[in-house]
Amino acid sequence: MSGRTAARRDVLRTTAAERGLDAVLVTNLLNVRYLTGFTGSNGALLVRVESSPAHPGDLFGTDGRYTTQAGVQVPDVELVVDRATVPALARAAVRRGAGRIGYESHDLTVDGLHGLERVLADAAAGGTAPELASVRRAVEAQRAVKDDDEIEALRRACAVADQALAELAAEGALRPGRTELEVGRELDARMLALGAEAPSFETIVAAGANSAIPHHRPDRTELRAGDFLKLDFGATVDGYHSDMTRTLVLGHAADWQREIYSLVAASQAAGRAALAVGADVVAVDAAARDVIVAAGHGDHFPHGLGHGVGLEIHEAPGIGQQGAGRLAAGMAVTVEPGVYLPGHGGVRIEDTLIVTDDAPELLTLTSKELLVL
Amino acid sequence: MSGRTAARRDVLRTTAAERGLDAVLVTNLLNVRYLTGFTGSNGALLVRVESSPAHPGDLFGTDGRYTTQAGVQVPDVELVVDRATVPALARAAVRRGAGRIGYESHDLTVDGLHGLERVLADAAAGGTAPELASVRRAVEAQRAVKDDDEIEALRRACAVADQALAELAAEGALRPGRTELEVGRELDARMLALGAEAPSFETIVAAGANSAIPHHRPDRTELRAGDFLKLDFGATVDGYHSDMTRTLVLGHAADWQREIYSLVAASQAAGRAALAVGADVVAVDAAARDVIVAAGHGDHFPHGLGHGVGLEIHEAPGIGQQGAGRLAAGMAVTVEPGVYLPGHGGVRIEDTLIVTDDAPELLTLTSKELLVL
Repeated sequence: MSGRTAARRDVLRTTAAERGLDAVLVTNLLNVRYLTGFTGSNGALLVRVESSPAHPGDLFGTDGRYTTQAGVQVPDVELVVDRATVPALARAAVRRGAGRIGYESHDLTVDGLHGLERVLADAAAGGTAPELASVRRAVEAQRAVKDDDEIEALRRACAVADQALAELAAEGALRPGRTELEVGRELDARMLALGAEAPSFETIVAAGANSAIPHHRPDRTELRAGDFLKLDFGATVDGYHSDMTRTLVLGHAADWQREIYSLVAASQAAGRAALAVGADVVAVDAAARDVIVAAGHGDHFPHGLGHGVGLEIHEAPGIGQQGAGRLAAGMAVTVEPGVYLPGHGGVRIEDTLIVTDDAPELLTLTSKELLVL
Repeated sequence: MSGRTAARRDVLRTTAAERGLDAVLVTNLLNVRYLTGFTGSNGALLVRVESSPAHPGDLFGTDGRYTTQAGVQVPDVELVVDRATVPALARAAVRRGAGRIGYESHDLTVDGLHGLERVLADAAAGGTAPELASVRRAVEAQRAVKDDDEIEALRRACAVADQALAELAAEGALRPGRTELEVGRELDARMLALGAEAPSFETIVAAGANSAIPHHRPDRTELRAGDFLKLDFGATVDGYHSDMTRTLVLGHAADWQREIYSLVAASQAAGRAALAVGADVVAVDAAARDVIVAAGHGDHFPHGLGHGVGLEIHEAPGIGQQGAGRLAAGMAVTVEPGVYLPGHGGVRIEDTLIVTDDAPELLTLTSKELLVL
């Protein structure tokens, strides 16, 4: 792992140099995890552009609870043990001669910035305090393209979700009379038993008319024969999130159900087919959306087509009508069109995939044929 | 619930008036939940000091995904549906004549503040933009004292943890040969089955020498006869977190194990006895710490005595040598001294309790006798 995280820090180092910075102070905890491998709850990282034996390079800060863990997870970065990680790293940056320090203005709070400014002024001891400049979402942009370790974690996270659903279906746990809450809890418990650290998000189980609510919270609604059952869930493995939606029918599927299912399946296939290196995210959304609009259901698809997925369940790139940017090889994204008929029911079909130079790699392998249980 | 949240907003309204503010913009999502009952992932609240029929009072902002949910959970606050909740509420505040707006500088990011300043300047349209002033942790200070609904949620969260552990022990799941990871996952799954939304935090299962690591992450270490088994875990119910640690021995307890167990139990009892309205948090820590120091183990107790618990697993008040402030009736706190002998094993005993005018109310009811399984 540490070779991988060192390579990630080097990419950020290059970005920092290009922006005329001497160092970058990384405070977003997921960005710190990405760049170091550290999984604790308190940590910050200073990535320095210049590195020499006299002034060794990067510094990782955490508190005394994590001294042992930091030694194991971050063996290749000099450790600073201090409860107040950001001031400690800022003082170290000044001592090592940083004149212009990047920081994450989307993560650091107003109080955090004021504290940092005070520390830098004190550390400069009457001299010129270093200048602070936002690096914006530089690390998030880097995280949008996954490396092999990340793709492997996503594969495992998707496999856990696939298997949990397969086991529940095989055991007859998805049957009339059970409640959404019961099914959701069993799906969560099964993912944990299969090695997930946690569900990726609050599992959505939506039966009957509830399936027409895009983000329904499971409640005591009972599953009934002839109803749609929409399951949107995922597993977290090594910090990486899978995301999958399948919509089933219990008992006999009516014609209207088969119709909107086929429509959403065709839209989803079109969206997957549009995942190509260099594709504009708005065009990818349109490829799937056009299928639904052409069938007269445009108003029944009120959300974007998909989103990046990784250490966060929603991360760059966004794939939607308001998105911007192009896909790159190694991006992990969801494709999840839906058609929701208020009061009746809705269908969403969602996969997690990796963009490649060839066809996208499908990570969520559960069948997308209309499953009638 | 909505009468309760209205009362909470009125307390904040009084704080705002005392500080010369016309309104407070609440961005911290847990504070928004506390003040409205909203459990979604995007929401902000504007609490206005002045309220009249012409200019109705508070405003709650969220995006279109949550329109239905907001109607159910926040029926008594005017709804503003906008993906960008903070700008939308800021514009509304200007329209309603706010001249001085409080904001949460410990929560709002630097980018968020800059965006807010731009919105206020635009909304003032050439006139004087409202002034922004930090309210610091005003809502967190209010949250430190729990009302009856909150205490009831904490009771249920503690009961789930108690029952999960009792079931595992009764079924023989805590036996030599099992791994820490297996025990942790079963504890988590059991809490979910008993109605928890999630574990309160990453469950700690530490066997043998691992029990000497205060915050050990469960791994493939096997439980062995004669070893300590330290379990630190909790359940989240209605957003409220329980927190409990118990240390057991598998098989026969050695004299040294009984000795440090008795010492920690005596320290923990002293800490619980010191929980009184008006008590200084440093003195509460000292009451428990002195017992351990007197036995010559002061260096083996390297953390604070406890912390507040509620919508967050760690919240105000902190109870430790670096703490400040006094206890008040209705505060929910943990008392969790520990003695850790590196390479051998450690004991921590932790309860969640409510400070009252009388003796504290114990919420975690699992026995603290040394359990030898």
